[in-house]
Amino acid sequence: HAQAMTAEEASALRAELAALRTQVERLEARLDAADAGSPGASPSASATAPAASAAPVTTWKGAPEIGNADGWSFKPRGRVQIDVAGIDTPGATGNRGGIGSEFRRVYLGVDGKIPGGFSYRVEADLANGSVELTDVYLTYGPGPLSVTAGQVKPFWSLDEMTSDLFTSVMERAAFTQAFGFERRLGLSAQYKGKAFLAQAGVFGDNANDLLDDANNSFGVDGRAVWMPKFGDTQLHLGGSAHWRDFNDSAATTRYRARPFAHTTDVRLVDTGAIAATGERGLGLEAALLSGPFHAAGETFWQTVRRPGLPDPTFFGGYAEVGMVLTGDSRTYKDGAFDRLKPSSPITAGGIGAFEVNARYDHLDLNDAGIVGGRQKAALIGLVWAPIDYVRITANYGRLWIDDARIATAAGDRDYSADTFGLRTQIDF
Amino acid sequence: HAQAMTAEEASALRAELAALRTQVERLEARLDAADAGSPGASPSASATAPAASAAPVTTWKGAPEIGNADGWSFKPRGRVQIDVAGIDTPGATGNRGGIGSEFRRVYLGVDGKIPGGFSYRVEADLANGSVELTDVYLTYGPGPLSVTAGQVKPFWSLDEMTSDLFTSVMERAAFTQAFGFERRLGLSAQYKGKAFLAQAGVFGDNANDLLDDANNSFGVDGRAVWMPKFGDTQLHLGGSAHWRDFNDSAATTRYRARPFAHTTDVRLVDTGAIAATGERGLGLEAALLSGPFHAAGETFWQTVRRPGLPDPTFFGGYAEVGMVLTGDSRTYKDGAFDRLKPSSPITAGGIGAFEVNARYDHLDLNDAGIVGGRQKAALIGLVWAPIDYVRITANYGRLWIDDARIATAAGDRDYSADTFGLRTQIDF
Amino acid sequence: HAQAMTAEEASALRAELAALRTQVERLEARLDAADAGSPGASPSASATAPAASAAPVTTWKGAPEIGNADGWSFKPRGRVQIDVAGIDTPGATGNRGGIGSEFRRVYLGVDGKIPGGFSYRVEADLANGSVELTDVYLTYGPGPLSVTAGQVKPFWSLDEMTSDLFTSVMERAAFTQAFGFERRLGLSAQYKGKAFLAQAGVFGDNANDLLDDANNSFGVDGRAVWMPKFGDTQLHLGGSAHWRDFNDSAATTRYRARPFAHTTDVRLVDTGAIAATGERGLGLEAALLSGPFHAAGETFWQTVRRPGLPDPTFFGGYAEVGMVLTGDSRTYKDGAFDRLKPSSPITAGGIGAFEVNARYDHLDLNDAGIVGGRQKAALIGLVWAPIDYVRITANYGRLWIDDARIATAAGDRDYSADTFGLRTQIDF
Repeated sequence: HAQAMTAEEASALRAELAALRTQVERLEARLDAADAGSPGASPSASATAPAASAAPVTTWKGAPEIGNADGWSFKPRGRVQIDVAGIDTPGATGNRGGIGSEFRRVYLGVDGKIPGGFSYRVEADLANGSVELTDVYLTYGPGPLSVTAGQVKPFWSLDEMTSDLFTSVMERAAFTQAFGFERRLGLSAQYKGKAFLAQAGVFGDNANDLLDDANNSFGVDGRAVWMPKFGDTQLHLGGSAHWRDFNDSAATTRYRARPFAHTTDVRLVDTGAIAATGERGLGLEAALLSGPFHAAGETFWQTVRRPGLPDPTFFGGYAEVGMVLTGDSRTYKDGAFDRLKPSSPITAGGIGAFEVNARYDHLDLNDAGIVGGRQKAALIGLVWAPIDYVRITANYGRLWIDDARIATAAGDRDYSADTFGLRTQIDF
Repeated sequence: HAQAMTAEEASALRAELAALRTQVERLEARLDAADAGSPGASPSASATAPAASAAPVTTWKGAPEIGNADGWSFKPRGRVQIDVAGIDTPGATGNRGGIGSEFRRVYLGVDGKIPGGFSYRVEADLANGSVELTDVYLTYGPGPLSVTAGQVKPFWSLDEMTSDLFTSVMERAAFTQAFGFERRLGLSAQYKGKAFLAQAGVFGDNANDLLDDANNSFGVDGRAVWMPKFGDTQLHLGGSAHWRDFNDSAATTRYRARPFAHTTDVRLVDTGAIAATGERGLGLEAALLSGPFHAAGETFWQTVRRPGLPDPTFFGGYAEVGMVLTGDSRTYKDGAFDRLKPSSPITAGGIGAFEVNARYDHLDLNDAGIVGGRQKAALIGLVWAPIDYVRITANYGRLWIDDARIATAAGDRDYSADTFGLRTQIDF
Repeated sequence: HAQAMTAEEASALRAELAALRTQVERLEARLDAADAGSPGASPSASATAPAASAAPVTTWKGAPEIGNADGWSFKPRGRVQIDVAGIDTPGATGNRGGIGSEFRRVYLGVDGKIPGGFSYRVEADLANGSVELTDVYLTYGPGPLSVTAGQVKPFWSLDEMTSDLFTSVMERAAFTQAFGFERRLGLSAQYKGKAFLAQAGVFGDNANDLLDDANNSFGVDGRAVWMPKFGDTQLHLGGSAHWRDFNDSAATTRYRARPFAHTTDVRLVDTGAIAATGERGLGLEAALLSGPFHAAGETFWQTVRRPGLPDPTFFGGYAEVGMVLTGDSRTYKDGAFDRLKPSSPITAGGIGAFEVNARYDHLDLNDAGIVGGRQKAALIGLVWAPIDYVRITANYGRLWIDDARIATAAGDRDYSADTFGLRTQIDF
């Protein structure tokens, strides 16, 4: 239970600060005197002052962040996720315990700040033999309101907005994949208050899809989050709405999801291509963090606009609970879950941080004559962070499929399957 | 309503205070020790020189450049250009106000110096889902003469040699695109005097084209620039000559140019494929910078060598004037325009730098029986640099086409079109 | 009654703390600079130690390596190799003196260390218009035993394990290419004693090949090296064994090698596609370094497991001698040759380091009914390192081929050819 700081403690703190300030000023005066007194330094002394204000300051956040007092900063970024994963289905798909390995993600990039309230990120995923730009943007925002031009995630879902470095289980909720959540190039704005976050933007498409001259799709996306803190307890209540026009008379869309293992290209649920003119989505989000515990849940409805046909609405969602076993806690920042930092890493003789998560995931791709299948999954995940920026995740899940895309040898389309995975991850 | 500080925040504050106190005490101890040990500081002055030669020195040029007095240096490089652009034609091409967005360029790379007069650059463009190596070279040149092995621009045209970060309008002169100016792998030399620049080299082809085993093309390129400064006025007079053998009996070439908007793949002027054994080019360049004003103009003649057929000569050029409205001025360096630096950026309470440019562009792809079309364009561009390394460019242009590649619905090939664009750019 | 501190007071406090921290960091930077130049550093030296644990330390290894005493470090990595090379065959292949140029390798990446015994590397080759991940791994190993997850070379051959930056001739032994040595994703362990090295791992396939869902290949690879030092003389005796199952009933393999010039795609020896279920390999390695001299030799037997057919065993190997002419010597580290560092670089008025190497290379792809050809080669290589991290290599070789894949115009498959090459290289 978080107890407020009393006036006594506060005034002690203030006194200590004042003492420190006096001490620092004394040190500074001594250093100035030393500079002034150094041989032939009289011109160099005055030159030192501005130079010192420009002196670089390096801090560590996995990688060095080099900055200076003028407001410049620069930091390399990257992540590597090595997966061993697979599924075990009833022989239908030829995936009986099929196990595969891959680089799930290999990101390299940079973060930077430019004085005046500008910041940027340039990053790409190199895991697939090509370049897939991930976050590439320029943000301007000296205050709580900021404007961003570039490629970002269009404000979909707590699970999607949480970095893949910090998700509860290896792969995100099935609906985030099925409904095609991805980064897109656009212009957006964000207001971030103490307990309120609002995000909205207009977006074209993913940078690689925009290489196609015929792609004229256009969308509007918005999200609002109320994130008050009651003592020790962080609450998260949010919702998002999305509208998109494919702007292409011959367009189709396709909703499908891998069985929580990315090493396979098999999708047990899959609508196939649907002739469509656009789509719209609506999501609700709720989460709670309190000490070592957390709970989260989301629902999302995605509607396809079809030319001259009824518009199907598909549904997905999940509910999860989790607990950190080692006295640490999951963190939360700006409308999403953040890094799990071990308070007692192996370098301090500890065992790092352990987290256990359990999730129920639901995806229904059957509606209005479209039979894409229905998938329910129970997943359990174990996260171990021996030290900050290193993380190992193990997963097991059981899936129950109705109307599966791929039938068993006996023609059965209702069956269950197992999924498992192991991820080794570093980031900087 | 003022909410009380929680125990967590307070303890974090206290921890930070304690850390600060330790740090200050350590500083004090060091200063004490230094004071005690530095009686005659005069020897320390001479001792400083060699020690400093090992210490790294970080300077900021958009990103930190880390160097040391031994002559080593290293700097990350990059740029992001986000374009919204399009054309409006008379319905012929299906591009009536067609508007598109894209990453025009996403470069990441590094610059480095090695003692003894060596320097290198490795950079690639990631904007197109693949890797396109841009400048990748090693230069040796302790003095005014330098030799470069690697991929660079083969010394074509003032507009081409000026970095795309600093051009007057978003897209370069139509002839630079039509005549296939690109970076190529080769060996070159440069002499740079106070007012004279000479560049020449032998080149194969662009690195990606060299992946094709059948590509044996070979060229020789040279350029000379006289760049005297009269008081405040910078003059630029130059010329370049180019010769290339495709070394392939089945080779063809194709000259075409986008309508000053890169988001579309439409080219209104286009020769189609021409059977060719080689090509040669000749360019003239002139420019003048004086205070806030500048003027520039170029002409370029490109001749295709055809087997057993007359050799057509195509022509392109432009003339431009520009003015910086905010008391700043465009800069010039080593035979090309350089960065526009706002003297009063928004961080200093200013509005940054504004520049207005007007350009007439001409491209004639009709000759010797080849009808590629003729394109004239009047372009106006506005550049705003709120702070160094951030730049927003807006463009409008009117194009007049004769013998267009794409006819209107009525079969007309002589028409006019509009082009417009908006670019948001950062670099480091 | 103790009244709680309000949010306003708390934020004022926090701001003051942040300002103090900046001030202290600036002081620290100034003191560090002063310490670097101080003469009698003995008192200040001991005081520096604790401070250094927070302060970043930058060292140069071609590029700056930024680290700190907590055990973090970060260093950019890269290399550029520019080749001009070709072969001259008796007119059979259309390669009479064919000369080509290319970027042989353009690597960019990073190396990092995380406290607790973790280190990582992320690097990719951008030379081929795509992304080919090279070394991408996370290693844990605080002591002589280490475990590595990720993509590395599966412990094949001294010539393969030696970085391409430091090989004797431009292209490695023909068998390393013919038998498909490449980096693969897997899990491996290494024990490194003073004079003994053991490496073993299980591997899937190269990251780009794993993108194919049907790829289920699996292998086990191990290598042991005895590397005692007798006085000045370094001995290297090693062996490696390899086993691989393609796990694919339709699999084929193909063994072939370029003629020591990578600019051409021609292979004079080539088995064509062989239906195969797997392969196994066995290699022996020996080398000796003594002052300016070195000698090295290897043999490798590769056996293809064919379904219902005899299993052919192919053979390759080489023997080489070399000498550094400038009083320097080739170096050796952890079971492989290492960097040739000029003791008298051009920056010190010297001529850098010169090395001459002569190699005999043998590859026999004829066995058990498979006729892939037999290639013998005599190669001579000259290496010049004017300064550390810059290197120019020139090669000439004569090849004698039996049963060449490509016949001469007269139908002859037994002939000789010439190969030559020039490489300009930098790395960091």
